[in-house]
Amino acid sequence: MKHRRIPKATIDRMAVYLEVLENFSRDGAELVSSDQLAKACKSNPAQIRKDLAYFGDFGIRGVGYAVESLKLAIKRALSIDGVWRCALFGAGNLGRALLGNREFVRRGFHIQAVFDCDPDKLGLRMFHLAVQSPSRLGHIVKEQDIQIGIITTPPNRAQRAANHLVEADIKGIVTFAPTRINVPDEVSLQYVDLFRTFYSLSFDISLREQEAAEEQNAD
Amino acid sequence: MKHRRIPKATIDRMAVYLEVLENFSRDGAELVSSDQLAKACKSNPAQIRKDLAYFGDFGIRGVGYAVESLKLAIKRALSIDGVWRCALFGAGNLGRALLGNREFVRRGFHIQAVFDCDPDKLGLRMFHLAVQSPSRLGHIVKEQDIQIGIITTPPNRAQRAANHLVEADIKGIVTFAPTRINVPDEVSLQYVDLFRTFYSLSFDISLREQEAAEEQNAD
Repeated sequence: MKHRRIPKATIDRMAVYLEVLENFSRDGAELVSSDQLAKACKSNPAQIRKDLAYFGDFGIRGVGYAVESLKLAIKRALSIDGVWRCALFGAGNLGRALLGNREFVRRGFHIQAVFDCDPDKLGLRMFHLAVQSPSRLGHIVKEQDIQIGIITTPPNRAQRAANHLVEADIKGIVTFAPTRINVPDEVSLQYVDLFRTFYSLSFDISLREQEAAEEQNAD
Repeated sequence: MKHRRIPKATIDRMAVYLEVLENFSRDGAELVSSDQLAKACKSNPAQIRKDLAYFGDFGIRGVGYAVESLKLAIKRALSIDGVWRCALFGAGNLGRALLGNREFVRRGFHIQAVFDCDPDKLGLRMFHLAVQSPSRLGHIVKEQDIQIGIITTPPNRAQRAANHLVEADIKGIVTFAPTRINVPDEVSLQYVDLFRTFYSLSFDISLREQEAAEEQNAD
């Protein structure tokens, strides 16, 4: 499989296809037509075919797709058919929410350790884990072969958390802190853009209101 | 200001510029050069100039940008210079984390009411709010002029939550549930793609590992 030529937009859409297939799966569907799948994804059959073609040949002519086998194929393509071991940095409400979210475990992302710089939080239990000092991070990452760091600190502490994770030789970081951080090129980095989503929404609502007002004025 | 021709990618980048400007602001900077700004945004000065030009003329020749006035201009452009009143649907850990996140209020997104379908949760206090029944939603949205609904239910309850919000005449929805939902065209809808971010990261880590292995084999 030649990973490197796959566009990022395809990867993003694959995640949508997977989500939609999970819905079909929950509803007990074994087969979906390519029209059904496209409609549920707000896409079109040609786009889906093109995206999937990067990873293999999945459609069944005249039928569509077999839900479970396509789900598995997409999971393999995205490298989420196994377990990713994660460490959480930031023992606040958001960290707790992620740790308590069963959807993470269901998708193979296992949070195995929690760290916080605040000495008052050390030893506090969050679900089944006790909050640890960042001084233990390197040891734990090595011992438990942790691959991913998740930053859930306030924005002003995110860079320090990232530095700790980079020093501990983590392979990739997902950060929820609403700020930009710097990591060396060899560490993968992804931002969860909570606020960007809210900004897009507020922009879109305002735009619609403005258009509605203009239409009314034109009457 | 002509909103409608502004590309979505520009809106997304404006949110990044704003985040980076908040960092400069926290560090006490009053002016940033266009090179500094571009570097911090992992962009280039021409792209930033082009994006900002949709909204007005902001640079100071030979100097760069005035941090506070550019922040305000971007907030106006994104319609986030005021307050957006929000209702939360789903009184779980994630809902609690959003409600307790001061960054939301700082950015003008005020969560004013919490709803949940689970009768066991009704009346429970989450910070300063009591969990209410969805049967109260229409009344509360009207009375408090709530514009945005935030869905933090499990995926199998997200569509029902969306239906309640649509019936209550909400203007826009941000959903954190990892599933696709359907709303009428007149309601704005944005997904926070928690898992898509994790999938992109796992794909990227795997790709790097594969490339490293191939290089080693080629030696």
